[in-house]
Amino acid sequence: MTIAKKIDTMMSKSSWIRKMFEEGARLKAQHGDDQVFDFSLGNPNLPPPEKFGEILIETVTTCGPGDHCYMPNTGYPQVCRSIAEYLTNEQGVAIAEKEVLMTCGAAGGLNVILKALLDPGDEVITPSPFFVEYRFYADNHGGMLKTVATNPDFTLDLAAVADAITDKTKVVLINSPNNPTGQVYSDDSINQLGQLLKEKSHTFDRTIYLVSDEPYRKIIYDGIQVPSIFMAYRNSLIVTSYSKDISIPGERLGFVAVNPKAEFKSELIGALALTNRILGFVNAPALMQRVVACLQGESVDISQYAHKRALLCDGLAECGYEFIKPSGAFYLFPKAPTEDDVQFVKDLQQELILTVPGSGFGCPGHFRIAFCVNDQTIMNAMPGFKRAIKPYR
Amino acid sequence: MTIAKKIDTMMSKSSWIRKMFEEGARLKAQHGDDQVFDFSLGNPNLPPPEKFGEILIETVTTCGPGDHCYMPNTGYPQVCRSIAEYLTNEQGVAIAEKEVLMTCGAAGGLNVILKALLDPGDEVITPSPFFVEYRFYADNHGGMLKTVATNPDFTLDLAAVADAITDKTKVVLINSPNNPTGQVYSDDSINQLGQLLKEKSHTFDRTIYLVSDEPYRKIIYDGIQVPSIFMAYRNSLIVTSYSKDISIPGERLGFVAVNPKAEFKSELIGALALTNRILGFVNAPALMQRVVACLQGESVDISQYAHKRALLCDGLAECGYEFIKPSGAFYLFPKAPTEDDVQFVKDLQQELILTVPGSGFGCPGHFRIAFCVNDQTIMNAMPGFKRAIKPYR
Repeated sequence: MTIAKKIDTMMSKSSWIRKMFEEGARLKAQHGDDQVFDFSLGNPNLPPPEKFGEILIETVTTCGPGDHCYMPNTGYPQVCRSIAEYLTNEQGVAIAEKEVLMTCGAAGGLNVILKALLDPGDEVITPSPFFVEYRFYADNHGGMLKTVATNPDFTLDLAAVADAITDKTKVVLINSPNNPTGQVYSDDSINQLGQLLKEKSHTFDRTIYLVSDEPYRKIIYDGIQVPSIFMAYRNSLIVTSYSKDISIPGERLGFVAVNPKAEFKSELIGALALTNRILGFVNAPALMQRVVACLQGESVDISQYAHKRALLCDGLAECGYEFIKPSGAFYLFPKAPTEDDVQFVKDLQQELILTVPGSGFGCPGHFRIAFCVNDQTIMNAMPGFKRAIKPYR
Repeated sequence: MTIAKKIDTMMSKSSWIRKMFEEGARLKAQHGDDQVFDFSLGNPNLPPPEKFGEILIETVTTCGPGDHCYMPNTGYPQVCRSIAEYLTNEQGVAIAEKEVLMTCGAAGGLNVILKALLDPGDEVITPSPFFVEYRFYADNHGGMLKTVATNPDFTLDLAAVADAITDKTKVVLINSPNNPTGQVYSDDSINQLGQLLKEKSHTFDRTIYLVSDEPYRKIIYDGIQVPSIFMAYRNSLIVTSYSKDISIPGERLGFVAVNPKAEFKSELIGALALTNRILGFVNAPALMQRVVACLQGESVDISQYAHKRALLCDGLAECGYEFIKPSGAFYLFPKAPTEDDVQFVKDLQQELILTVPGSGFGCPGHFRIAFCVNDQTIMNAMPGFKRAIKPYR
């Protein structure tokens, strides 16, 4: 073998998920794309807001010759300023231009943060179920991902988080609204988490950072509010992207914001600029930076996702599926009717329904349905969902 | 200190370069941007080719709703195909769509390659002077950069490369046309290097990869040819970007191509797709992928760089500077008139001329002039260059 041993292991380990995707591709080739109900990917189906298209055309047609050049590794100052102003309102804390760093999506931003923070062997704690890529991101930079189960309703189990923190803990990484559960952590639980991290930082004489990955912040239902991270805990960072809320995941545009009250803030900001550079991101894509600067607060029509959520939840409840209704994002994470979630996902494939087993998110016995699909796909899949659960009832 | 110790060290180590840039910024603030002769950055000053603007507007105005979505981690198949066709002609070897992987620039591509290949402690050999970021890229993924001096005329010293290869060597990384010297390695030397790597791979029973970083391939002078890497050695990869040849460095668009004859090719391609994903790049920016697919073979007007090269070389020769005339790229790497290149760069700053000391490229006693600037900047800086060298003559 000529590739790195670790990468080789990762490839063979993830091969059962790959096999599932390959099976999906096989089914599509056999039956036709439109005959297969693909709920496997968080690839938003709603088009970007109309204003995105307008601003994009305007930006492109008014491009000057220097507009595709390098800019500071942290991004265009005017773009950071525009985001800082929006965030100030969102977080209830005054945020300055220099506290915002433009990144290649949230995935890029998370790598930039972890590279800047982790010493070898440092632990990153994340509530489970969790976005599976977190494990790779921590490992990329010499860290270890440590997962802590949430409560059965997927709310934060603060006692479990407290127990998990050690003198090796450098980061607590949360994702709310959550992928794969769609749960939004309450204001209370975020404040308690902040208090806990303050105490634990004191106990271990070591700054523990709260990193909040929130690309789904604007995709929320029933008038729920996503709490302010910066109000809850000073040593915190927000990382997010425009992938989901304005449906441009392929463009790789996001940002990191550093709490203006963070200790050693200027070292931290300097470190993020350095890691953005040396990891090879260099800077977030120039044109899209200038576009999103004009789209602060914009989002796709969330009521359409709310409608899809209703269609899916009502339909599955009627079939007898058990689940916690998501307060945000576009995922549902029902219990599989058997402990063997991989088997049940295969059963669904027999019905030409593609989903992802909970094992892929550190939570066996469940499966994830991404409902960022056409309403018709949801409705037409219902008979299949009904047939698949029948043998288990 | 709360940031990672290694990052903290990197920040303090690079601080003298940073201080130099800060000094440049201070000079600009004091004297006005146009009074300072800034040769410090490889930020191309020529505008992108006209066709770029046309294709960009056409691409944006014909965007469909799914055109900003995720695509395969390796890039749009039709974009990879278009590049593979162009490369087939350039390299003289038939290259298939699946052998091309779209990346966030060459910097992204290099990280993707090294993450895919390096086991802890593996060595990456590169001829010196070298692009300083290589050291970070190797270190990011547990590797060690090992530099090998080139000949005094900056051509490859193959005996030195042979001596440097050990049972830890996994990659030989070349950059031709070179940053900072502008030298282009000859067909002969590339073929000999290929032969050497074949022998050494056999000796150590271990595949040694040749990675060719070639963002300056199209920026060449005097009708010189850049040799085919794929013809010279089977276990090779090309990594490049559109940053320099069409002047869009801020857009972060490049690609990796795998030699169609490489051993374990499918594992290697799979590994690259995986590392592109888990490093957080996920995919190269969507819109620009589709734009560059229509710009294969395009470049800025190279004759303008040739003119700048002539202005600079003629002027500096007259002042008494010694240098090897660059065959490509837009850098000149003259000898400093003293061994203390940092001091001489400071002397030049007194003349409001900003350059980078050779120490920053592993080659003290030299300094780098990036001549991707206005002709006027070159001409107006000449009296300063003349005054700066005077005390040393």
